[in-house]
This record gives sequence, structure tokens and C-alpha cells, in this order.
Amino acid sequence: MPKRIEMVIGGHGGQGVILAGQILGKAAALEGKNVVQTQSYGAEARGSLAKSEVIISDSRIGFPAVRKCDVLVAMNRESLDRYLPLLRDNGILIVDSSIGKIPKVEAKTYNVPAVETAKKAFGESLFANMIILGTLIKITRIVSVESMERSIKESFSEKTLETNLNAFRKGSQLI
Amino acid sequence: MPKRIEMVIGGHGGQGVILAGQILGKAAALEGKNVVQTQSYGAEARGSLAKSEVIISDSRIGFPAVRKCDVLVAMNRESLDRYLPLLRDNGILIVDSSIGKIPKVEAKTYNVPAVETAKKAFGESLFANMIILGTLIKITRIVSVESMERSIKESFSEKTLETNLNAFRKGSQLI
Repeated sequence: MPKRIEMVIGGHGGQGVILAGQILGKAAALEGKNVVQTQSYGAEARGSLAKSEVIISDSRIGFPAVRKCDVLVAMNRESLDRYLPLLRDNGILIVDSSIGKIPKVEAKTYNVPAVETAKKAFGESLFANMIILGTLIKITRIVSVESMERSIKESFSEKTLETNLNAFRKGSQLI
Repeated sequence: MPKRIEMVIGGHGGQGVILAGQILGKAAALEGKNVVQTQSYGAEARGSLAKSEVIISDSRIGFPAVRKCDVLVAMNRESLDRYLPLLRDNGILIVDSSIGKIPKVEAKTYNVPAVETAKKAFGESLFANMIILGTLIKITRIVSVESMERSIKESFSEKTLETNLNAFRKGSQLI
């Protein structure tokens, strides 16, 4: 992977893409990396779209916004359609399998049944964000599993921590 | 206030400036505004510095990063020194009174005893972030008190909600 990695995670409001970006960003910061994590709300993220950007770099981050991303995670159809133009050629595309047919692109594409697995394993689609983070880390190795789990532990209350941690671990087994 | 408002909140790690930015951003989104909220971690935010940017606009936010800010909130000396050059002339500067002497600037300056009040009223300096948000909203009226309180309610668990809400209300009385 390049020294500066730019990522976009998109989904509909309530799918926890903002939290996913925050947890990923925090994990990278735990490893001493430079991180800029941005979330957009409102009409900016049109309708019910939510968008989370994460830039991770070993060196100083000059320009703090994503122009072209190396990795795009799309949790729903709308975010795929909207953010696909941001993905650079030969980037990595991770989509939830509920999206259905994916346009042909010059990207390494992974179809992950995150929402389906969340419903089946935990009875709640809302854990799909941790599942897809597990898959993302397995594929990209942007940060270590240890840093991710530490960041997850710092992000949830005791009540929901175990399920979120299990969801993250399950995600790494889907690939 | 102009149609596009750019804010920077800075402090040391643990002062909750990132959470403050998130709560402010969410409140503006609740009002149907476009919001981009960015946090920087790591050497990017040098040493233990934490930086939260919030851009609020009635229209589409083209450039998603702060170049010059209209409002700077500095919770500690380091963030004041580091981010003061970002504040535009005739902007608004809000500093915690623990910082001490403030350089002379072309800005409307407010010295707020947020940390001191948090310690005295709640026995914990960590509530200073909600206090200074209360002051910020009283001064700037960027979003309504109602939207802020709704955003605060969505951001804390039952256990700490009341204290955070009280801290926010206390902040508006300091000005």
C-alpha cells in the first residue's frame, strides 16, 4: 500500500459508517500514524447518505480531504453510485452483497455479505459496520488487528462491546 | 454571521474537543444545514494536540477543509499558539481562562473560565468542553440551543447525560 492511504466509507444514515471511520482512524492514530477523519452530514451527503473519509499517512498530511480514494467501502447502492467516481484505477472496492449487480470497474472488488451476516449472527443489521471493518482490515492490513480491537474497546460501552468485537472478528473470516 | 461558517476547536487530548466538534456538527445537521466535521490525530495534531474542524453551510460545501476560520476555540495554550494564524481578521476567539495572557489580535476575544467552572461545579475538568460549547452557542448563535441539547442527548449515555447537559447550560451563563 502507498504511504498515504485515502478511504471513503459510504452508506445510509444509521449504518454506522461514521463510527466505522472514527474507529479506523483512532486505530491508526494508536499506531503513531497521522490521521484525518472527516464526516459529512446534511444535503452534503445527499438525502440519507452518510460519508466518512479516512486519510492515514506516515508523514504530514498536507491536503486534508480525499480527492481520489484507494479504498471505497459501499454499504448501499446509493453510496456506490455516488462515490465510485472517487475510486482510483486499481483501487480496492468493498461492497455489501445486498447491493446486487456492481458496475464493471478497474478495481479489485470484494462482495461481502456484511448486512446478511449481521442479521443472521447477531439479529441486527446494525453490526454490519464492524463486520465490514473486519473484512477491510483483512484485505488491506492498513492497521493491525490489535490496534483495531483496542480502538473498538475504547469506542463502545460494556453492554455492546462484545457483540461489536465479535462482529469485527467475523468480518475477517468472510474473506 | 456569513452563510459558510468555519470553526476550529483545539485543546490537548482528553479535553474532548473532538466530541465537542461532533456534537456541534450533529446539531447543525439536525437543522438541515450542510456540515463537514473533521478531526486530526497523530503528529498531524502534534504531540498531544487535538483539533476539530466544523464547517457549517446553508449551501453545498465545495472545499471541505478550513482555510481561515471565523471562530477559534482554544482550550489550551498550545492550540492557541498553533491555530491562531488560522483565525481571520475580525473573527471570534474563545479561550479558556487557564491559558493566561492572550496575544493582541484583531478578533473579538472571550476569556471563559470553562476548565475552572467544570472543576468547581462538577468536580471534573473534562466537562469543560460542554461548558465552552454553551458559551460558543450563546456568543455565535450558529445553531439553536434546542438543536444543541438534542444533539447532546443523542451523544451521551444516560449515566453522564445530565451532567453534560448541565455543563452546556452553565456555559451559556458565563457570558
